[in-house]
Amino acid sequence: MNRTEPADTPLGDAFHVYDTTLRDGAQREGISYSVTDKLAVARLLDELGVGFIEGGWPGALPKDTEFFARASQGELALKHAALVAFGSTRKASTNASDDAQVRALLDSQAPVITLVAKSDRRHIERALRVDVAEACEMVRDTVSFLVSEGRRVFLDAEHFFDGYAFDPDTALRVLMAAGEGGADVAVLCDTNGGQLPLGIAETVREVADKTGLRLGIHCQDDTSCAVANSVAAVQAGATHVQCTANGYGERAGNADLFAVIGNLVTKLDMDVLPTGGAAELTRVSHALAEIANIAPDTHQAYVGASAFAHKAGLHASAIKVDPLLYNHIDPSVVGNDMRVLVTEMAGRASLELKGRELGVDLASQPTALTNVVEKVKTLEAKGWSFEAADASLELLLRRAMDDDGDGLGDALAPEAPFELESYRVVLDHRSDGEVISEATVKVHVAGERVIATAEGNGPVNALDAALRKALSPSLAWLDSVELADYKVRILPGMHGTDAVTRVLIESSDREREWTTVGVHENIVEASWLALCDALVHKAMRVAF
Amino acid sequence: MNRTEPADTPLGDAFHVYDTTLRDGAQREGISYSVTDKLAVARLLDELGVGFIEGGWPGALPKDTEFFARASQGELALKHAALVAFGSTRKASTNASDDAQVRALLDSQAPVITLVAKSDRRHIERALRVDVAEACEMVRDTVSFLVSEGRRVFLDAEHFFDGYAFDPDTALRVLMAAGEGGADVAVLCDTNGGQLPLGIAETVREVADKTGLRLGIHCQDDTSCAVANSVAAVQAGATHVQCTANGYGERAGNADLFAVIGNLVTKLDMDVLPTGGAAELTRVSHALAEIANIAPDTHQAYVGASAFAHKAGLHASAIKVDPLLYNHIDPSVVGNDMRVLVTEMAGRASLELKGRELGVDLASQPTALTNVVEKVKTLEAKGWSFEAADASLELLLRRAMDDDGDGLGDALAPEAPFELESYRVVLDHRSDGEVISEATVKVHVAGERVIATAEGNGPVNALDAALRKALSPSLAWLDSVELADYKVRILPGMHGTDAVTRVLIESSDREREWTTVGVHENIVEASWLALCDALVHKAMRVAF
Repeated sequence: MNRTEPADTPLGDAFHVYDTTLRDGAQREGISYSVTDKLAVARLLDELGVGFIEGGWPGALPKDTEFFARASQGELALKHAALVAFGSTRKASTNASDDAQVRALLDSQAPVITLVAKSDRRHIERALRVDVAEACEMVRDTVSFLVSEGRRVFLDAEHFFDGYAFDPDTALRVLMAAGEGGADVAVLCDTNGGQLPLGIAETVREVADKTGLRLGIHCQDDTSCAVANSVAAVQAGATHVQCTANGYGERAGNADLFAVIGNLVTKLDMDVLPTGGAAELTRVSHALAEIANIAPDTHQAYVGASAFAHKAGLHASAIKVDPLLYNHIDPSVVGNDMRVLVTEMAGRASLELKGRELGVDLASQPTALTNVVEKVKTLEAKGWSFEAADASLELLLRRAMDDDGDGLGDALAPEAPFELESYRVVLDHRSDGEVISEATVKVHVAGERVIATAEGNGPVNALDAALRKALSPSLAWLDSVELADYKVRILPGMHGTDAVTRVLIESSDREREWTTVGVHENIVEASWLALCDALVHKAMRVAF
Repeated sequence: MNRTEPADTPLGDAFHVYDTTLRDGAQREGISYSVTDKLAVARLLDELGVGFIEGGWPGALPKDTEFFARASQGELALKHAALVAFGSTRKASTNASDDAQVRALLDSQAPVITLVAKSDRRHIERALRVDVAEACEMVRDTVSFLVSEGRRVFLDAEHFFDGYAFDPDTALRVLMAAGEGGADVAVLCDTNGGQLPLGIAETVREVADKTGLRLGIHCQDDTSCAVANSVAAVQAGATHVQCTANGYGERAGNADLFAVIGNLVTKLDMDVLPTGGAAELTRVSHALAEIANIAPDTHQAYVGASAFAHKAGLHASAIKVDPLLYNHIDPSVVGNDMRVLVTEMAGRASLELKGRELGVDLASQPTALTNVVEKVKTLEAKGWSFEAADASLELLLRRAMDDDGDGLGDALAPEAPFELESYRVVLDHRSDGEVISEATVKVHVAGERVIATAEGNGPVNALDAALRKALSPSLAWLDSVELADYKVRILPGMHGTDAVTRVLIESSDREREWTTVGVHENIVEASWLALCDALVHKAMRVAF
C-alpha cells in the first residue's frame, strides 16, 4: 500500500492514468457508493490497470475516511495502482501542520495526495477571500509539509483554463508555488468544462514552456469535449490524465476513462495499461455501471453494446468480407464484440453472420438459412424487430434448423418448458378509485395441468406472478430469473391494419442478461409472448 | 419548398447547420420513425432554425419516399430550412440520367440533394469494384446531371479521413470530381468515427488548401470526439456541419446537433441560428427524444436536465453569489436552467411563458402560479412529463387558476363532461389461441348513470370503445375525436418504488391535434388518465 508509482505497466511512471470515479465521479446525481461499493470499484479499476485510484476526501466525508481506514487495514490489495487521497490546501493564516483537514490526509495513510487549489484570481479573491500571495503560500506550505511527511503530492489547479484566460500571471504563480513545494504534477483542471480541444492544446503547450513543470489534465464534459480535450492535452505534452468510469460526474460529467484509454491505446499507440488491460475495458465498464446502479450507455464509445453494431443492410455483405473497413478498430482489442443488427433490410449475409455470433452454423444449411430469412422478413413486416432481442432471434434460428427436417437441427431446437392452455387478466378500477390487476393462467408443466392466480401492480406483472406461481414447483431454475427491464413501443398500423404493440423484455439470472421480443395488437399478449421466449431461452441454456 | 439556402438566419448561406437525424440518426438501434414522426421531427428542427434538413433516402426506403411525397404536397411548410434528399451516385457503367435511384432523387422534389460517394481507394476497389477513374466519373456525372436538373448538390465523401490517410491522391480526386460536376460543398465524412480533433483540423486545412473547395464535416462518435471533431473542423475552415439530434446514429452515434450548436454559438460566437433559436435548444432536444421514444440523456451537454445542476456541497453558497463563476455559460442562453429541477418546465418563468402560449394569463395571479409550479414539481417527481403534452398542461394550468379561489379562474376551469364510477377490463387468451379484450365502464353523464360494454383489439382500445358507447348519445362532438397516436414509456422506479408507465395520447378532431399524458404503475390506468384528459380538453374547446 506504500506504492507511489504505477506497477507492472509498460510506461511505468512516465504516464499516469489517474481515476477519480470514487471522488469526482461520485458527484453524479443518483450515485451513492457504500464503502463496500468503493472497495469493489477500486479492485475493478486495479484489475484494469490504472496507475492511480483517488479514493475520496478523508476528513471531509465520513464514508471516505472509513474507506481509507479499511483499505489501509488490508481490505484493498492493489496490484498496479497507487492509492490517492484528495483534499484541500490549508486554510488561510495557519500552518499546514496545524490544519485538521491536512492532518486527515496524513491519517488516511494514502501514499499519494492530490491537493486542490484555486488558480483563478476571481475565485481566490471572491470565494477564498485572500490575496494571490497568500493563496500561493497556502499551496507551497501544504505541499511541502506533506512531502516532508513522505507523501507524493499532485496539485489540481481548479478553474485553471478560465483563470489562465482571465489572468495568466496568477494562474502560473499558483502552479509554480506547487512546484516549489515539491509537487510532482500540476494538473490543469477545466472545472467548468467550457473548453474546446484546439484551445486546450495551445494552453498546455504554453504552460509547459513557461513553467517547465510536469502537467496533468482534468476535464469536465460541458461542451461534450471532455474526452477530446483530455487527449488533445496529452498530444500537447500532458503526461497525467484524470478520468472517471463511464464519464460519471457532476453536470455533464467528466472525461470517460474508457474512451480516453481507448483513444490513447488505439489511436496514439500509448501502452498506458498493463499487458492485457485494454481487453478488460468493456467488462470493467459494465461492472462499474452495475455497482453505480446506472444502466450502461449502449452507445458509449469503445465499450457500449452498440459501439460496433451495424444496422445498415447496405454494408452487411461488405462487412462479412472485410470487417476492418467498417470499424475504426478491431472490437476485441477493447474486449467488445461486433454485433450485426437484424432489421427490415436483413439479408442472408447478416443473418448468417448473426447465427455464427450466436453459435448457430447456418452457412452449412442453405435450406434452413432460406427459411430463417423468409421467417424474419415476414415477422418484421408485422412489426417484429430482432435488433435488440438476440435471445428471441436465437430461438428463431434454432427452430428454423429444426424445420429443416434433416434431423440435424432437432438436437439444437429448444423444447418449451411448459405449454399454455389459457390465461385471463382482469383489471378493475373500482368506484373507490383503487385499481386492481389479477391474472389466472392454466398451463401444462412436467406432465401436469396447473392453475394459478396472482395479483400484480399491472396486467403484465400479474401475469408474470401467476405464471411463476404455476411453474416454480416444477422448474427449479425459475427463481433465479428476474425481469430486469421492460420496454414498450406502439407501432403505427402497417398496410392499413391496426397499430400493434412491440414489447422487449430483458431478463437476468445474475450471471447473464438476455432480451426477448413479442408483438401483438394486444399489449398484454405481446408481453406474454416475450415473457414465454425469455423462459424458453433460459430453459435451453439450462438443458445444454 | 424550393428554397436551397437557409432563410432568415444571420449567417445565411455562409454557414450551414445541416441536420441528418431523419436519415443517419434513424440508423440508431431502436429508432423507427413513422412518416408522421418524420414530419414532426422536421417541423421541430425548422423551429430551431437549422439550415438544412435531410429527410431520408427516397427510392431506397418506402417510408422516405412517402415522406418526400407528403412534404412536397404541402404537409411540410419550412420557415428556415431547405429540404434535402440523400442518395447514392449512379451505378458503374450507366448514365446518371438512366439510373433509377438517381431518378428517385429528382422525383422526391427535394430542392437540395446530398450524394454519398466512396473516397477511400480500398472501398472503391473492394466494395464498389471499379477503378478510381470510374468512381470519379460516377461522381462527376451524377452531380452534373442533378445540377442540370436545377438541384443544388452536396457531396458526402464517405470514409474520407481513412481514405485520405491511406491514399490522399484518390480521396482528393473524388472531391475534385464533385467540384467539377458542380457540387457546392464537399463534405468530409469520418464514417468509421476513428478520428481525433487535432488530426481533423490539420486534414481540413490541408484539403482546403489543396482543393479550394467549400468543405463540410460529418463525424461519427466512435472515439467519443464527434462534437469536438466537428468544432475543430469548423475552426480549421469547414463552413458546413452535419449533425443529428442528441447524437442519434449507428454504433456510438453522430455529432450531437445541440452540443455542436451550443459550442459554435457560445464558444466561437457564430450566429448559426435565427435570432432566438439557441434558447430553443433544450426544448427541441427533449421533444425530439420524445418522438424517438428514447429517454433524454440527463447528463447531455447544454440541454441535459443535469447540465447545469450542482450537487450540494463545496460550491453551493458560492454559486448563489456568483453563478457564472461555476457555470461555463448562462444556462438560459440555451433554454436550460441552473436550478435542480426535475425538468426545466417547472420554473416559474417558463410556466408563465407556457401559460401565455396556451392563452392562460398566470402573470397576474402569483398564487395560482405558485400552485402550478408546486403541482408540476410533484407530478414530475412521480414520472409525469408535460414537455410533449400541452393539452394536459393546459388543463392543469386552468385547474390551478380555479383553485386560486378568487372566482376569476372558475370560468376558465374546465368541467369534466362525465364522471367515472368504475371500469373493468377482461383479457382472455382462450385455449383455442384467440385473444379477446372486453371493457365495461360505468359513468355519469348528462345527469344519468350509463353502463356500456365493448370489445377491442387490446385493453385500451376496448376501454376507449366502451367509453365512447357510453358517452356518444350525450356528447355530440365525440364522433369527431380520434385517437391518432399512442406512446408508452416504462420509467424506472424512483426512490425505491416500482416502475411506472407513462402514456402519451395524441388525439385529433380533423382540425386540430392535441396530446395528453397519464402516469400510473398500471399501464391501463395510465392510458385511462390520458384518455380522460383528451376528452375533457375537447369538451373545454367546445364550451368556449
